[in-house]
Amino acid sequence: MKDRILIVGAGLVGSLWAVLLAKRGYQVEVFELRNDPRKAGFKGGRSINLAMSDRGWKAMERAGIKDTIRQQAIPMRGRKMHDTAGQLTFQPYGDQDQAIYSVSRGGLNIELIDIADQYDNLKFHFGYKCLGVVAEEAKAHFEHRDTGEHLTVNADRIFGTDGAFSAVRRSLMKALPRFNYSQSFLDYGYKELHIPPTTDGKHALDPNALHIWPRGQFMMIALPNVDGSFTGTLFLAYEGQTPAFDQLNTDEEIMAFFQTYFADAIPLIPNLLEEFRENPTSSLITIRCSPWRYEDKVLIMGDASHAIVPFYGQGMNSGFEDCTLLDELIDAHDGNWAEIIEAFNHSRIKDANAIADLALRNFIEMRDKVADPKFLLRKEIAAHFNKIYPEFLPLYSQVTFSHIPYSEALEEGHAQDALFEEILVLDGIEHNWKDNPEVDRIFRKWMQGRPVLATS
Amino acid sequence: MKDRILIVGAGLVGSLWAVLLAKRGYQVEVFELRNDPRKAGFKGGRSINLAMSDRGWKAMERAGIKDTIRQQAIPMRGRKMHDTAGQLTFQPYGDQDQAIYSVSRGGLNIELIDIADQYDNLKFHFGYKCLGVVAEEAKAHFEHRDTGEHLTVNADRIFGTDGAFSAVRRSLMKALPRFNYSQSFLDYGYKELHIPPTTDGKHALDPNALHIWPRGQFMMIALPNVDGSFTGTLFLAYEGQTPAFDQLNTDEEIMAFFQTYFADAIPLIPNLLEEFRENPTSSLITIRCSPWRYEDKVLIMGDASHAIVPFYGQGMNSGFEDCTLLDELIDAHDGNWAEIIEAFNHSRIKDANAIADLALRNFIEMRDKVADPKFLLRKEIAAHFNKIYPEFLPLYSQVTFSHIPYSEALEEGHAQDALFEEILVLDGIEHNWKDNPEVDRIFRKWMQGRPVLATS
Ligand SMILES: Cc1cc2nc3c(=O)[nH]c(=O)nc-3n(C[C@H](O)[C@H](O)[C@H](O)COP(=O)(O)OP(=O)(O)OC[C@H]3O[C@@H](n4cnc5c(N)ncnc54)[C@H](O)[C@@H]3O)c2cc1C
Ligand SMILES: Cc1cc2nc3c(=O)[nH]c(=O)nc-3n(C[C@H](O)[C@H](O)[C@H](O)COP(=O)(O)OP(=O)(O)OC[C@H]3O[C@@H](n4cnc5c(N)ncnc54)[C@H](O)[C@@H]3O)c2cc1C
Repeated sequence: MKDRILIVGAGLVGSLWAVLLAKRGYQVEVFELRNDPRKAGFKGGRSINLAMSDRGWKAMERAGIKDTIRQQAIPMRGRKMHDTAGQLTFQPYGDQDQAIYSVSRGGLNIELIDIADQYDNLKFHFGYKCLGVVAEEAKAHFEHRDTGEHLTVNADRIFGTDGAFSAVRRSLMKALPRFNYSQSFLDYGYKELHIPPTTDGKHALDPNALHIWPRGQFMMIALPNVDGSFTGTLFLAYEGQTPAFDQLNTDEEIMAFFQTYFADAIPLIPNLLEEFRENPTSSLITIRCSPWRYEDKVLIMGDASHAIVPFYGQGMNSGFEDCTLLDELIDAHDGNWAEIIEAFNHSRIKDANAIADLALRNFIEMRDKVADPKFLLRKEIAAHFNKIYPEFLPLYSQVTFSHIPYSEALEEGHAQDALFEEILVLDGIEHNWKDNPEVDRIFRKWMQGRPVLATS
Repeated sequence: MKDRILIVGAGLVGSLWAVLLAKRGYQVEVFELRNDPRKAGFKGGRSINLAMSDRGWKAMERAGIKDTIRQQAIPMRGRKMHDTAGQLTFQPYGDQDQAIYSVSRGGLNIELIDIADQYDNLKFHFGYKCLGVVAEEAKAHFEHRDTGEHLTVNADRIFGTDGAFSAVRRSLMKALPRFNYSQSFLDYGYKELHIPPTTDGKHALDPNALHIWPRGQFMMIALPNVDGSFTGTLFLAYEGQTPAFDQLNTDEEIMAFFQTYFADAIPLIPNLLEEFRENPTSSLITIRCSPWRYEDKVLIMGDASHAIVPFYGQGMNSGFEDCTLLDELIDAHDGNWAEIIEAFNHSRIKDANAIADLALRNFIEMRDKVADPKFLLRKEIAAHFNKIYPEFLPLYSQVTFSHIPYSEALEEGHAQDALFEEILVLDGIEHNWKDNPEVDRIFRKWMQGRPVLATS
């Protein structure tokens, strides 16, 4: 008889992990706080759409649902920057055929739940709030949100995929004698704003790009949805700085702010004032912790163990990669869970910390540097190097279009910073980089010092 | 009528803060988990003695009890290093008249409680465990540890001085929308070992020094007590490395370990095996968080807001400095608590983070570098500079013998590192530093770039 496995949280990571385990014949029970989104409609609370990139797709493939999801996904081949005058510039993410994909959080979650639900050895229980786990006994306590019913569930193993404010993690924190934990909030909040389709049902902006309004200390972005709309997201300081959310109170203040910084977006958001006032301002948290497991009985995954800020579009992708890696480890360790969980806990935490750092660093890139000519020049030169030496992969590509461990990508990123610090100070580099023997010399010398990358 | 103030936790910081507030005429209620240590005897659970240095003494002076405490304190004028052959070397902390003082945790705590208890406007309640606070209403819930009685206490303001595992902090974490928090454990534990007086009642080692057995990856230290004994503390990895606590199980393993690394200490610890087995192995935690307050209603202080590892001997000292600074702010803001608490929260957190960093860094210094000739040379040259230019204060002196904000000391420490990196690579520096014009030139140039220190 296969292990009885309990999954707490049927968000993106929990429902994918449920599919992969059910496929292998484990007895899987999934408890989720919300009601069944297939009946109740999906109530997210968080971003309406997300960018899926290679790490996510690999996991989709493993679950056998890549094609289904791809049909509902919109490729974004680069960033489209909007300056204050409404002028647009485009910056490709990689090659012609490389893209990140805008997917609907609700659509994706429902699809995963639907597929998981086809397995007889898997059962969903909706509306149950996990109150905590008894780690050493691999049992969990639940309360039904409507009836108040209390329930204790025993299992051989528990996976906590209950998100950034994980109840399973809270229990680990108490059960483990030395649990390292940090939660850190940005001084910035975000607010979503709806950009409906045009009257003839088309996208109001180029749908094959991620739109950015970079404004130095803050920014707005927009990702396309399949119904022709976009979801815009404003990232802005909570307080103190000008501008900040706490300085935007009256209609006049809000309109003046948009007129100064996002004039070209005003006609795109018909209910701007109403949405600005009624949509919540949400916070941005980074969670780091270790260890992630209690013996071979409890493991936390996804946002529950490593929530990150959204600026690299890697939160879901890294959670999905958790599933891929664990699934690979099941094969490598022939189903020995003590070994699987130990190996995952041992190798994965540094990668989670690395993508947390990269995501924080990318906020500055997106809100500020993408509008900086030096930054654009670096991108161009990097793309050129990549053409000559395919082994040279720009940092963004390593994170987004490869499966190189995040910690190696971060290290590589630091090394690339050093390379471009040398190159970008060369005289007249803006104009003469193409056939500049000095650029070539610096680059070749740098390449000689680089280790061969682990995977690609 | 003066504010009603509730203090949660009558440890070192809470009982000192109670004295300072009672002195000013506030209505103070102090709730403490343990029973009255004056009746029950002091049950610490943590280090038996502590090093008090200038920041602590300043607070004692403010409370009017410096002389009383000093009578029970043993000056330690430097480090005495024990090598594996039992050879001793001495390293002064500063001038002849500078010392840190070994004080008894229990004695000091009882003294503070006794003094606080003399005020009619102050009342202690022992045996009450705080279960949490309702921050926005400045009220706290308690449970009596023997009777189980539940009690809710209302106040105008609550100070949480309930230590590293603070219940008040846990409530702030829930009440504040964006509470940044980190708890981080060393992979090292510590174990106390008793070194009794000699048969004629004398100290078995020089009492006017802090003894260190530096062994690279681990160490033992010992501080004197007034009864002629010493308290030794072994700091060692929990597991994995050799040696580590989890490798020391049998009597033979323990004895072999001591024979190899601490041979000269074996005759000093008559009950070595018994103590090693029966005394707990305790963990070492660093806590950082922000903010420290809920409006002007709740403030956490001491270990509750900034627990640090003990390697700089500044945990209690920094908590006592919290009291000094707040007491100064009461004067500066004429008792306006909203301003006092905001000013403290605004300026003090960076200093707490700095001493946390310094304490972590000092572990490596104590267990490893104090045995390194280059390090000793640096100390000597620094002392020499300090004689010529009294404005040049070695980092250790800034932390221990000054009231310079910790964050400035940390910065100064980094700058001094850079200075000595230049000096210590000079040819023949071991022998020729005294009248070396190059050393002088480097030093003078460096001094020109230094800011004038804030306070001293
Ligand atoms: C603004 C924003 C934009 C983002 N954009 C991207 C992007 O473009 N690309 C990307 O890869 N990532 C993105 N992310 C990150 C992504 O949303 C998360 O990484 C991802 O949702 C994590 O999935 P999860 O399943 O671990 O957690 P969640 O999606 O949070 O799911 C947790 C589930 O557990 C349930 N639950 C919670 N508590 C309990 C309980 N006590 N008992 C039972 N169930 C419980 C919840 O109801 C939920 O269903 C973004 C995040 C934000 C905030
Ligand atoms: C091994 C070791 C050596 C050290 N050496 C030094 C040194 O040499 N010099 C130095 O300056 N510092 C040293 N320290 C640090 C020092 O011990 C602490 O910084 C200091 O004790 C902090 O004082 P506090 O009052 O904030 O917390 P604590 O001393 O921990 O006091 C907290 C009080 O609150 C009570 N309490 C806890 N929870 C509750 C609750 N829920 N309800 C009610 N009451 C509660 C506790 O019983 C206790 O009395 C050392 C620490 C360790 C571990």
